[in-house]
Amino acid sequence: MPVKLKNDRFLRALLRQPVDMTPVWIMRQAGRYLPEYRATREKAGDFVTLCKTPELACEVTLQPLARFPLDAAILFSDILTIPDAMGLGLSIVEKQGPRFARPVRTAADIDKLGVPDPEEELAYVMDAIRLIRRELHGSVPLIGFAGSPWTIGTYMVEGQSSKDFSLAKGMLYSDPHSMHKLLDLLTRSITSYLNAQIDAGVQAVMIFDSWGGALSQDSYHSFSLDYMKQIVANLKKDSDGNKVPSIIFTKGGGLWLDDIANAGSDAIGLDWTMNIGEARAKVGDRVAIQGNLDTAVLYSGPEQVKQEVGKILASYGEGSGHVFNLGHGIHPGIDPANVAALVEAVHELSSPYHK
Amino acid sequence: MPVKLKNDRFLRALLRQPVDMTPVWIMRQAGRYLPEYRATREKAGDFVTLCKTPELACEVTLQPLARFPLDAAILFSDILTIPDAMGLGLSIVEKQGPRFARPVRTAADIDKLGVPDPEEELAYVMDAIRLIRRELHGSVPLIGFAGSPWTIGTYMVEGQSSKDFSLAKGMLYSDPHSMHKLLDLLTRSITSYLNAQIDAGVQAVMIFDSWGGALSQDSYHSFSLDYMKQIVANLKKDSDGNKVPSIIFTKGGGLWLDDIANAGSDAIGLDWTMNIGEARAKVGDRVAIQGNLDTAVLYSGPEQVKQEVGKILASYGEGSGHVFNLGHGIHPGIDPANVAALVEAVHELSSPYHK
Repeated sequence: MPVKLKNDRFLRALLRQPVDMTPVWIMRQAGRYLPEYRATREKAGDFVTLCKTPELACEVTLQPLARFPLDAAILFSDILTIPDAMGLGLSIVEKQGPRFARPVRTAADIDKLGVPDPEEELAYVMDAIRLIRRELHGSVPLIGFAGSPWTIGTYMVEGQSSKDFSLAKGMLYSDPHSMHKLLDLLTRSITSYLNAQIDAGVQAVMIFDSWGGALSQDSYHSFSLDYMKQIVANLKKDSDGNKVPSIIFTKGGGLWLDDIANAGSDAIGLDWTMNIGEARAKVGDRVAIQGNLDTAVLYSGPEQVKQEVGKILASYGEGSGHVFNLGHGIHPGIDPANVAALVEAVHELSSPYHK
Repeated sequence: MPVKLKNDRFLRALLRQPVDMTPVWIMRQAGRYLPEYRATREKAGDFVTLCKTPELACEVTLQPLARFPLDAAILFSDILTIPDAMGLGLSIVEKQGPRFARPVRTAADIDKLGVPDPEEELAYVMDAIRLIRRELHGSVPLIGFAGSPWTIGTYMVEGQSSKDFSLAKGMLYSDPHSMHKLLDLLTRSITSYLNAQIDAGVQAVMIFDSWGGALSQDSYHSFSLDYMKQIVANLKKDSDGNKVPSIIFTKGGGLWLDDIANAGSDAIGLDWTMNIGEARAKVGDRVAIQGNLDTAVLYSGPEQVKQEVGKILASYGEGSGHVFNLGHGIHPGIDPANVAALVEAVHELSSPYHK
């Protein structure tokens, strides 16, 4: 029996069905810019424990919804849960980012890895989803997510964040066979993980390809986009009788938008560098678009935020198919008052476009 | 009386005149991947001293030319010499990058700044150019350069490198008037600096817009591209009776290529994310193209390097107007043997395209 949401604007916009106003959520909306998040993070002790404790993950997932009338919740988790479940040993080093105790550097390293069982090694994620769904009481949909194979793969090979991806791209160019083997394993793992998230209750899924934009055009297609296509093709299409829309987001992928729009997802994420009206003209009726305010606008004041929100809504124009978001995750130093101004401006200024 | 170069392939390609083979040079070719560079850098004590000592700057400029049959030399210097000359106090912190002792954060900070006199505060750059020109003995042309106003401006406001440009973009959105004032001052300073470089002997000039690609489309046009247009329009057009071609390079600017090609420069730099054949089709006969091998290819071996060079040459196709380069500066960890393979492959594989 289909579940009836109190606010299904987000899901309707992803499926390009009519809405009363443009839905909005914010990448990394449960994050360090919120004092209540920092308090829960403190209580958890460290970031990985916060991810792995369903009650705490649920708590921070709901925090931004208590402050702002957002149109969707997103599971609080990390794109690196999968390699952690594969045994790489994830930790987060303060001010430096993720570290793997056992990075993957050789064909032999890759051969040792297997597809994690989402209800075993990743049970804490599924438990968090079930808990969040209960606590949401059908108010807004819950988004599940995963990193893209290429993006997760870069961290596994580098063992940490990287500016130039010398090890991961080094493997790509010097031993493409091994890189494909790793990406194939990740593709199967991510597909199983996202399908388990759908079974546990997420109502839409998003794939974050944070580092696909660091590739050349040819490499992007064969080492990132093709694998995302495989994932999207093998996702469960509905849950409780409702369609589960999918979103692909390649940061820096503006040049390849046409191909991304053909990858099979219901929607694409757009970073802040591309004009959203031009992007809409390019993708036409194939997919919905999520984005794309420059996160840095939130360093100004409520008036400027409202003005820039208005420009993006005008650029997108009339009709459904737009989910408002930033073009990048929100930064820790941003004033929550500007986020409040953003959410209010999207709802207030968008209704004329949905007459 | 026009000076006759022994090898003018680079200048001819920038002006889309016939060449016997595709010219090649490498961004940051005088750099840490070369043991002889590291020795001179050690001798200088620190990076800023290396830049400010004409004999040492000349020495490292010439080092890669002694190893590889490159078709151009590029002045060894830094894009931050201008703000240093304005009094901001530049230093380079090991493994962290540039730091300014006195960053620019307010309208009052900007009001205190003036246009540096290239033959006074920046005399060490002009002296280095005159020395390098003598030492080159007319073998290959010497490239001069500057950062773009926006790129230099980000460092001046942030006081250091930044991942998200929160301060610079914060100023852009909250106080655009002050940001424009800073960019206007930088535009006048860069124009005067590049014209002094031309007077001192550089035979082509390049503007590095390393961070224009971090802007939204609207902001890119008004806060970066428009200022580069002003610079190009006010550059001296010839030196010793030879035309001095100009190159604009916005990393991450692939989406705006058409507008960049209209900015008035003779050539545009292309980063590694865009297919060069598609870029050529887009810009047509308006400008030459410089680029665009993924720097990470140099982490593989000579055979793979040759193969990837071949793909780019084939993608560009027949005729002049192509200067081979990486799509980004070379990294410190790269084996010089792969650079040798690259230069050899460009010359060897390109001649059939220039029949």
